[in-house]
Amino acid sequence: MQKEKIKAPFFVVNPKSFLYGNPLMELARKADELAVHHAIDILFTAPSTELVNIVQECPNLVVTAQHVDDVSPGASMGKVSIESLVDIGVQAAVLNHADHPLSLSTLVHIVQRAKQKGLKTIICADSVLEAQAIALLQPDIVLAEPTEQIGQSQISSRDYVTSTIKKIKEINPNVLVEQGAGIRSEKDVEELFRLGADGVGVTSGIVKAAAPIEMMEKMMQAVSTINRERK
Amino acid sequence: MQKEKIKAPFFVVNPKSFLYGNPLMELARKADELAVHHAIDILFTAPSTELVNIVQECPNLVVTAQHVDDVSPGASMGKVSIESLVDIGVQAAVLNHADHPLSLSTLVHIVQRAKQKGLKTIICADSVLEAQAIALLQPDIVLAEPTEQIGQSQISSRDYVTSTIKKIKEINPNVLVEQGAGIRSEKDVEELFRLGADGVGVTSGIVKAAAPIEMMEKMMQAVSTINRERK
Amino acid sequence: MQKEKIKAPFFVVNPKSFLYGNPLMELARKADELAVHHAIDILFTAPSTELVNIVQECPNLVVTAQHVDDVSPGASMGKVSIESLVDIGVQAAVLNHADHPLSLSTLVHIVQRAKQKGLKTIICADSVLEAQAIALLQPDIVLAEPTEQIGQSQISSRDYVTSTIKKIKEINPNVLVEQGAGIRSEKDVEELFRLGADGVGVTSGIVKAAAPIEMMEKMMQAVSTINRERK
Amino acid sequence: MQKEKIKAPFFVVNPKSFLYGNPLMELARKADELAVHHAIDILFTAPSTELVNIVQECPNLVVTAQHVDDVSPGASMGKVSIESLVDIGVQAAVLNHADHPLSLSTLVHIVQRAKQKGLKTIICADSVLEAQAIALLQPDIVLAEPTEQIGQSQISSRDYVTSTIKKIKEINPNVLVEQGAGIRSEKDVEELFRLGADGVGVTSGIVKAAAPIEMMEKMMQAVSTINRERK
Repeated sequence: MQKEKIKAPFFVVNPKSFLYGNPLMELARKADELAVHHAIDILFTAPSTELVNIVQECPNLVVTAQHVDDVSPGASMGKVSIESLVDIGVQAAVLNHADHPLSLSTLVHIVQRAKQKGLKTIICADSVLEAQAIALLQPDIVLAEPTEQIGQSQISSRDYVTSTIKKIKEINPNVLVEQGAGIRSEKDVEELFRLGADGVGVTSGIVKAAAPIEMMEKMMQAVSTINRERK
Repeated sequence: MQKEKIKAPFFVVNPKSFLYGNPLMELARKADELAVHHAIDILFTAPSTELVNIVQECPNLVVTAQHVDDVSPGASMGKVSIESLVDIGVQAAVLNHADHPLSLSTLVHIVQRAKQKGLKTIICADSVLEAQAIALLQPDIVLAEPTEQIGQSQISSRDYVTSTIKKIKEINPNVLVEQGAGIRSEKDVEELFRLGADGVGVTSGIVKAAAPIEMMEKMMQAVSTINRERK
Repeated sequence: MQKEKIKAPFFVVNPKSFLYGNPLMELARKADELAVHHAIDILFTAPSTELVNIVQECPNLVVTAQHVDDVSPGASMGKVSIESLVDIGVQAAVLNHADHPLSLSTLVHIVQRAKQKGLKTIICADSVLEAQAIALLQPDIVLAEPTEQIGQSQISSRDYVTSTIKKIKEINPNVLVEQGAGIRSEKDVEELFRLGADGVGVTSGIVKAAAPIEMMEKMMQAVSTINRERK
Repeated sequence: MQKEKIKAPFFVVNPKSFLYGNPLMELARKADELAVHHAIDILFTAPSTELVNIVQECPNLVVTAQHVDDVSPGASMGKVSIESLVDIGVQAAVLNHADHPLSLSTLVHIVQRAKQKGLKTIICADSVLEAQAIALLQPDIVLAEPTEQIGQSQISSRDYVTSTIKKIKEINPNVLVEQGAGIRSEKDVEELFRLGADGVGVTSGIVKAAAPIEMMEKMMQAVSTINRERK
């Protein structure tokens, strides 16, 4: 189901390359159920090889690529184009993750082309200043995540979170702000939303949990609670 | 159908990112039929997003990734691991294409890991010297293709072809040598095999032909003729 | 002579790697004379190997590195640190040129460290949007230069020039805006200043001129004229 | 003094970017004296900004760049060309260090151009297989250094050292083999030569020694001892 626009509060399940094949599909199917059950927007990312299967089985997820290359269909080899993502039903792509740093001119170019083709963009930012610069580029979502904290077991400091959100919205009030990094429980999810986040994204907090699917359920329950409160 | 080993003469259909979705699948289905009909090994490459569909519909092709990253499953974002390719039934991967130049130490590392996991490797080489260095790394196939000729409308010179094959086999007699670049017709395919190539790979010669599927049929007929002669 | 701050109108001689050794030094010595004669700020860039000689012979130039790496002195190999540039008397560095595209997080980091160490920064921008994002990072100078026009024989369009300047100053009124690309004569220099540029930078217009030193003299005369008018 | 060919046993002082300005020059001057005193070939590397000063003051060193770019003089920005290195009297360049990994086709191209222009090349290799592939490219020196051991406090294992040397010489008996990584004393230097190394290179062992200049003296004394023995 193609979303016109992502609605806050939203949740992002980002299993990176920890999962593939059946374990990934199981997590995706459960996320799909919960998206319907809680009536919230859930972005679910996957490596490019896995995207088409998830799109086909999980119509209620905003299936999201973990990267997209700055190429048009043509003579490029081993690249993933915006066009091919849209063709298989992918709705969004993450850009500028620490594993795929992009130059500013590539970012400007991809965001523009993605808008034309109907692909939503989530751009990762490290510092507050970087997050502001990215907000200027008009992506759908800015993911504010200090690189040094990726994979850590503490959420970003309250100061980082609130100041980032405030300063990003000063530059562009329409952009959605996602917080990630260091989320380990449904309490962390709730806290980040109460600090003003539009969305929350989780990797290790789910894939390394004792019971990943149960943890994901609890976290989405927290999003649902916030959703009802904000209405 | 998992191949133990690629057999010469083999043919590589390499549509790069020119095709995706239905047009790509149509070409793949026809190649699958021809692989059975002529009883020859056909490698068919595709962007990572398309691989799973081709594997599922085309059991007689050696479905081949156009690139694979030097990562293990884990915290990497937007990367394609050897493990995830093998999991979906991909049998080979192209490495070191001009669009994804790899350092020598990365090449050594990926080829080693690919062997352990059962993924075949095709490594692109530019000059004769580069092709020899690559042959030392013990990939399954060396693709000898002068970078400056990619996409051109002339096959590599006879001298380049024969000297490359001779010099690669001096270093490693077991590696298969694929020739590409500038192939426009079934005659070019035949000529490259008569000059000693183990395999021939084609992009523009098929995707830019007036009738791509017919051209692919004629080229595979040429491979089949060579196959009978060599027996 | 260490400048506290670059003053508009300024001029940038950017011989890229066209010149080295004596021909480069000759141009630098003449630029040094003209900086004194016209009492204007002249930035003179050079490859890293040539910087120390220019600093020693040309005390009146703002000698400028063509790139600097995001490293501190230490275990890095073959990198140029801010500290080593400052140590030899270099006053500024160009960043994010199309030949050295940097990720946004690297840019943020280098600009911050450069400020602490007393090195001025000139950051290249391609599109207007990119120029605005860069202005947020608070460099000393934004060099607005559409990548596709580098080395061409036409200056950027009037629209590009005036809109870029206006939109950059909206984001950060203190940043200086340099225009480059396609400047072939002293008339082009004058026109860019009249359109509102704070500075003008030239490569091909000088190094490929029939008489490079004479052309540089005429261009600096144009800067001097503008300088007197603006007072 | 331009060397026709590096003679074994040779020594490489490689201060990376730990030193610059006066402390670097002091070390270089002492190395220059010792090169004359012991009549051995000493390669001395430095960041590109420092090379010209060392060449001018230290005529008995083989002054060596820590990297060189694959560009000809021209429109490239912030790059160091072979031509500009040769022009200032630099005699050699290190390539493919872990901080500057190069694709195989770039390596082939640079080594070829360096030969034409009279610049010697030292290429870093990680594994034995990589060292063999590099030996095929005909550089002057292969620096065999397992990446994971750079900066460590143990020399490479005897097995790594002897097997690397043997296998490299099988491929190309004319290439010189330098060993590095983990050298902490004159005893380590001696041991590596006794295991068959043609040259030994040191970074941390000198720059992090309690008394760097004295340590360098002792190490070169060890080279000198080996030199007399081998005659």
